[in-house]
Amino acid sequence: MKRYLKVTSLDAALDLLSGGFSCRPETIRVPLEESAGRITAVPIIVRYSVPEIHVAAMDGIAVVSADTKSASEQHPVTLPKAVRVNTGNVIPQGFDAVIMIEDVWADGDRFTIRKAVPPWQHVRPAGEDIAESEMAMPAGHRIRPFELGALAAYGVTGVDVLAVRAGLIPTGSELVLPGTRPGPGQVVESNTVMAGSMLAEAGVTCTRYPIVKDDPAMIRDAVSRAVRENEIVIVSAGSSAGTRDFTAEVIAELGEVLVHGIAIKPGKPAIIGRISGKPVFGIPGYPLSAFTVIREIVLPFLRNYGLYVPVPDEIPARITGTLSKEIGSDEFVLCTLGKVGDRWVVSPQSRGAGVQMSAVRANAYLKVPSASEGWEVGEVVPARLMVTRQDAATALLVNGSHDPALDHLANLLQQQGVSLLSTNVGSMGGILALAKDECHAAPTHLLSPDGSYNTEYIKKYLPGAAIDLICVAGRQQGIVSRDKLSLKDLPYRSFINRQRGSGTRMLLDFELSRAGIDPVSIAGYEREATTHIAVALAVKSGEADAGMCVYSAARALDLPFVPVAQERYELAVRREHEGDSRVAALIRAVGSAEFRNILDRLGGYDTTETGSVRKVA
Amino acid sequence: MKRYLKVTSLDAALDLLSGGFSCRPETIRVPLEESAGRITAVPIIVRYSVPEIHVAAMDGIAVVSADTKSASEQHPVTLPKAVRVNTGNVIPQGFDAVIMIEDVWADGDRFTIRKAVPPWQHVRPAGEDIAESEMAMPAGHRIRPFELGALAAYGVTGVDVLAVRAGLIPTGSELVLPGTRPGPGQVVESNTVMAGSMLAEAGVTCTRYPIVKDDPAMIRDAVSRAVRENEIVIVSAGSSAGTRDFTAEVIAELGEVLVHGIAIKPGKPAIIGRISGKPVFGIPGYPLSAFTVIREIVLPFLRNYGLYVPVPDEIPARITGTLSKEIGSDEFVLCTLGKVGDRWVVSPQSRGAGVQMSAVRANAYLKVPSASEGWEVGEVVPARLMVTRQDAATALLVNGSHDPALDHLANLLQQQGVSLLSTNVGSMGGILALAKDECHAAPTHLLSPDGSYNTEYIKKYLPGAAIDLICVAGRQQGIVSRDKLSLKDLPYRSFINRQRGSGTRMLLDFELSRAGIDPVSIAGYEREATTHIAVALAVKSGEADAGMCVYSAARALDLPFVPVAQERYELAVRREHEGDSRVAALIRAVGSAEFRNILDRLGGYDTTETGSVRKVA
Repeated sequence: MKRYLKVTSLDAALDLLSGGFSCRPETIRVPLEESAGRITAVPIIVRYSVPEIHVAAMDGIAVVSADTKSASEQHPVTLPKAVRVNTGNVIPQGFDAVIMIEDVWADGDRFTIRKAVPPWQHVRPAGEDIAESEMAMPAGHRIRPFELGALAAYGVTGVDVLAVRAGLIPTGSELVLPGTRPGPGQVVESNTVMAGSMLAEAGVTCTRYPIVKDDPAMIRDAVSRAVRENEIVIVSAGSSAGTRDFTAEVIAELGEVLVHGIAIKPGKPAIIGRISGKPVFGIPGYPLSAFTVIREIVLPFLRNYGLYVPVPDEIPARITGTLSKEIGSDEFVLCTLGKVGDRWVVSPQSRGAGVQMSAVRANAYLKVPSASEGWEVGEVVPARLMVTRQDAATALLVNGSHDPALDHLANLLQQQGVSLLSTNVGSMGGILALAKDECHAAPTHLLSPDGSYNTEYIKKYLPGAAIDLICVAGRQQGIVSRDKLSLKDLPYRSFINRQRGSGTRMLLDFELSRAGIDPVSIAGYEREATTHIAVALAVKSGEADAGMCVYSAARALDLPFVPVAQERYELAVRREHEGDSRVAALIRAVGSAEFRNILDRLGGYDTTETGSVRKVA
Repeated sequence: MKRYLKVTSLDAALDLLSGGFSCRPETIRVPLEESAGRITAVPIIVRYSVPEIHVAAMDGIAVVSADTKSASEQHPVTLPKAVRVNTGNVIPQGFDAVIMIEDVWADGDRFTIRKAVPPWQHVRPAGEDIAESEMAMPAGHRIRPFELGALAAYGVTGVDVLAVRAGLIPTGSELVLPGTRPGPGQVVESNTVMAGSMLAEAGVTCTRYPIVKDDPAMIRDAVSRAVRENEIVIVSAGSSAGTRDFTAEVIAELGEVLVHGIAIKPGKPAIIGRISGKPVFGIPGYPLSAFTVIREIVLPFLRNYGLYVPVPDEIPARITGTLSKEIGSDEFVLCTLGKVGDRWVVSPQSRGAGVQMSAVRANAYLKVPSASEGWEVGEVVPARLMVTRQDAATALLVNGSHDPALDHLANLLQQQGVSLLSTNVGSMGGILALAKDECHAAPTHLLSPDGSYNTEYIKKYLPGAAIDLICVAGRQQGIVSRDKLSLKDLPYRSFINRQRGSGTRMLLDFELSRAGIDPVSIAGYEREATTHIAVALAVKSGEADAGMCVYSAARALDLPFVPVAQERYELAVRREHEGDSRVAALIRAVGSAEFRNILDRLGGYDTTETGSVRKVA
């Protein structure tokens, strides 16, 4: 069992990186048309003035300003000397002003004016834009797309820009190439795809090398080659301290390991090494660990080459759940961020390092500092944006019970520029988030003993609040299994349940009690999944014999489904937010014919009441 | 003389655009590696779960959790059934938990533990990341670079994304191709280069067609072809109402002109037409007019195709000068924006529509609304960012007297991530900006009657303020001419002067008075340029016989230079700002050996005192 040499703090690792390497980028010449977003390697000095000589700034006549001195409305002057010019024409020698054609009475080539003009009126003097020998841009300037026009006008056809080459080496005997369907225990090699895309955005030219098996000699060959061919090398996976982890050993053999283990979460098994004076990074195999190491260590390091890596924008936001951590590591947590009423709120996502969807769903992240024990619910914390500030403001926060229909609503809303971000916390979780004004809408299906849905819970947890319940659908819940089991078959079968507080769990308990079945008789009653599809999948994979979920989830995985009950799945919304354009768009989308068609196609939904609104208080 | 049909307001033009076209983008499939930044055309549904079956989340042993129940520190348990697994390995049938290898005492294939584990510990359940049939991304989602990793892992190798083709037609008999040095009255065709780059950033595929002369028949052919081959057509120039402006006429012939003339400045001569149901834009020839029309009209319109065009971020900032305008047009003014102390300040740049450098120098712009008569100095106005908020915070505002050395300082500072933005307002303008705390440094060379430089002016205009004067150089000023003229030769020669308030102008007046020369005797004494290089250029182009400027400007244009005086060119800085990292970087750069070498190379600078600091108060 190998161990980490010594875990290094993030700050120390970054310091070491900025001091430990010479970081000399290459200079390459790119055609002007491909230069947007790149960094100038040298100042751009213009070789001729623009314009090079005086030209007319308007369509009109070139005149000698002195000839116009006595002209007025009362005393029109017919000019002794004038010549027709269009915008951009050279001002002929001896002339020093232009009069707009609209202000001239022309009779053949005789021109009469009624107003004196000062010298150099409507003349673009030579060098007005830029003069020969002037610096259009310093070195280190990031070229913005619109600047290509100016550069073209100044005679620039190619630009010397900074270039850094990175070699990306995927290692792991379990890896298969993208496009190959992974067999049991295999994984698609995706970390170098991600790294390549993130580095390319910073202007790095990446080479993805072939997958290398967990074999020290083969890894050594690959690393040697990549170090020869690039300024930076990244080795994906094998960076931990396990028996199959060879990255550190190989780097130590070819050069030196400067850091093995960085005090960040996720991302601890990271390596910083140096071979032939060049930095070699070992990044962890878990995708979100790799993401974190690239974002927090590799990308900031690229600034030492003069490359442009934006500093994330931050918004102070109220955190909707307590975030605990141990002292000693900087911890990074992916989040959904949105503005409810006048207040920004931020909700931490799953912290599983293998759950890439939590990055796809996230529009922000938190950095909880090493010295902190975490943050209490309700604290205002700095959320770092993964989208623009303006885009974060379009987020529609939907917290509550999950249904596949929400993804389809998200799809409809995205076309209107609204990003529906759903956090699956179950119906009760949603009601509580709504009570704290931490979400825009709470999808809920909570059954009361009197057989009614949702209203009693709203009255209890949001007393006096003006709430609208917008019906998504009457929704079929039932037992999913491989063998067409029904509720009464559950005892002594292995079961996969939903989490406490979810409407499905409550419905199950209600129906079990009606059927006189004791939950204790159900193996796996304690095992929780957080979505319908996760339940269906557990059944499909054989992990459980049965579970309860909505029809669409069973159908998506082609599993038998035995209906148990139809429930009212509604979105609870504070009436005061309905003027908000995002909430209004949500309500419109639920009521649209398109959405109803989608539900009908998915199956298991009674759409008779879809879009109808019930008022509570 | 043609006239505009009727000038349309910007809002009305945008409304008309969003209602008047069906805006159906195409869908194209791009390889995953090229999909970052593009917009999904359809939802991405995953075809298999990730992971597809339960796998180990740690290196260790797979166990049956029930077997561990009685284990404790006091009562170690040797497991009847356990098997070695590494992270990612499939959990064998019948096992339901993983124990980390660090927590296991191994003796061959006998494993002893001292702690009970719950079921499913360290197991990644099937579908933990995403389940078969789930939606990874909705349609209309902008793919972020890091998301390519998730998509690769989910088996996605190509993505259906939105595509819009735009045809760009440059028109104008005066145009030459980029790379060709323009002759007198010729202009490099740069508007379609700019448009192409700006549209490409939004994901549009652009075709730049060959330059078309000002000939209606040729323009008609080009437009017909572009309409056939693209969803959007942009015709550059010829959009005004002059005798050589044929764009509107051609559009009317092939389809219809919806708008001719939009109430914006710059950019009024814009056209919106429709041919075969497709939008055809006529954009003005002046580069900054074209820039404004593309940014404010064409790009926002692209959102109707589902493309992503970010809304500019805004920062409220104090405006450093009065901005007057006429009611009736939305006016867009390029600016430099920066943070001085705790306050954001914004300075309008030149409003000349041909001065592309004002866009290159700008990091923000203002939209002064149609109904407004402008803004008073000191008002807090919304500055729209052309860089990120974080980058705007790196701007070092330098207002005052211009010298080519400032561009070289900008170059040195850019390497350190500091953007030096200089506004040429002359020495007095700089002192006043410093007095109002609207800039970080004021380059100044103001001569007092006692022969001292700068200190008396600082004392008068910043009474009591703690100011440091950092010496850039002793700077040679002299007469630039084509014929080696000296000060005494100026009478009866044509002259190009610097603006009132500039140190050069004051020095000239001082030296003229010493020499007993009456300014009235100098033709062109009233003619003002705002930089040294502009003075030299006016002389080189023959517009003036002589002017006064620094040596480096004369040398850059290869013109004779007759010294008049050496002056002290210094940067005035408020001492309280010297803790600011940008100001500190400036002071370091001025004192660096590298900068001294640059000055020596430029010539005309006495660097004996370069970097030395004088304290005032």
